[in-house]
Amino acid sequence: MSNDIDGVEVANEELYAAFEAGDLDRMTALWVGGADGVMARCVHPGGGFIRGVDAVLRSWALVMANADDLQFIVTDVESVVQGQMATVTCTEIILRPGGGLDPFTSSQAVATNGFIRVSDQWRMWLHHASPVMSDSGRGDDE
Amino acid sequence: MSNDIDGVEVANEELYAAFEAGDLDRMTALWVGGADGVMARCVHPGGGFIRGVDAVLRSWALVMANADDLQFIVTDVESVVQGQMATVTCTEIILRPGGGLDPFTSSQAVATNGFIRVSDQWRMWLHHASPVMSDSGRGDDE
Repeated sequence: MSNDIDGVEVANEELYAAFEAGDLDRMTALWVGGADGVMARCVHPGGGFIRGVDAVLRSWALVMANADDLQFIVTDVESVVQGQMATVTCTEIILRPGGGLDPFTSSQAVATNGFIRVSDQWRMWLHHASPVMSDSGRGDDE
Repeated sequence: MSNDIDGVEVANEELYAAFEAGDLDRMTALWVGGADGVMARCVHPGGGFIRGVDAVLRSWALVMANADDLQFIVTDVESVVQGQMATVTCTEIILRPGGGLDPFTSSQAVATNGFIRVSDQWRMWLHHASPVMSDSGRGDDE
């Protein structure tokens, strides 16, 4: 179980590494394929569900093309693994090159990332990211 | 498998029925308990992760207290079930009583809802809802 969690958290890190590298091949390798029996789906912050792996990968190509020099600090990573399915929740602190006196600007999003084990590899089938617009929803008391 | 999907979609409907009824007892019965081995977590639109079932249920009490007469039309419901774990994604069309000439106003959100089977009951451990701010993210081509 601990190995499963390690494995799925490595896959989760790969999402952000592929994004930062702007590498669509790595992104494609991470996501489920059309033959894996689970329909890929993806929500970028502020958007609706994009469904089907082709549309999802096209959306990543667009997002990455418009996000040069973006960096992620990924925190609050927590995983639930049950058999062949895993879900990782995390907070994304997103750093962008700033203008003027600021070296960067930052914003915050939260993500739910879903994985399915296919031939011993954790493949992503779900990414749901949303903007954190205030601290009011946080209420973390654990 | 088909029965599993039916069951988890009934649990998914119960979330919105409990919300519309403003019934915290039904909401409590739907969510995992502290002894179920999975930490409950919840994102309301625009917020960060709220963690732990007590904090999550307090947040629902607040949200429901501030949402009289809200109605949900839940569409695009799609479920993935693997063993004891299930994930439902859906689009929420949220109707509020309007002012002036409009009988209601509507907004749209997307949700990822996670369930774990506990003693033959699907219990919610994850709710991640986020506002849809434009149609640009949709790109649904299936």
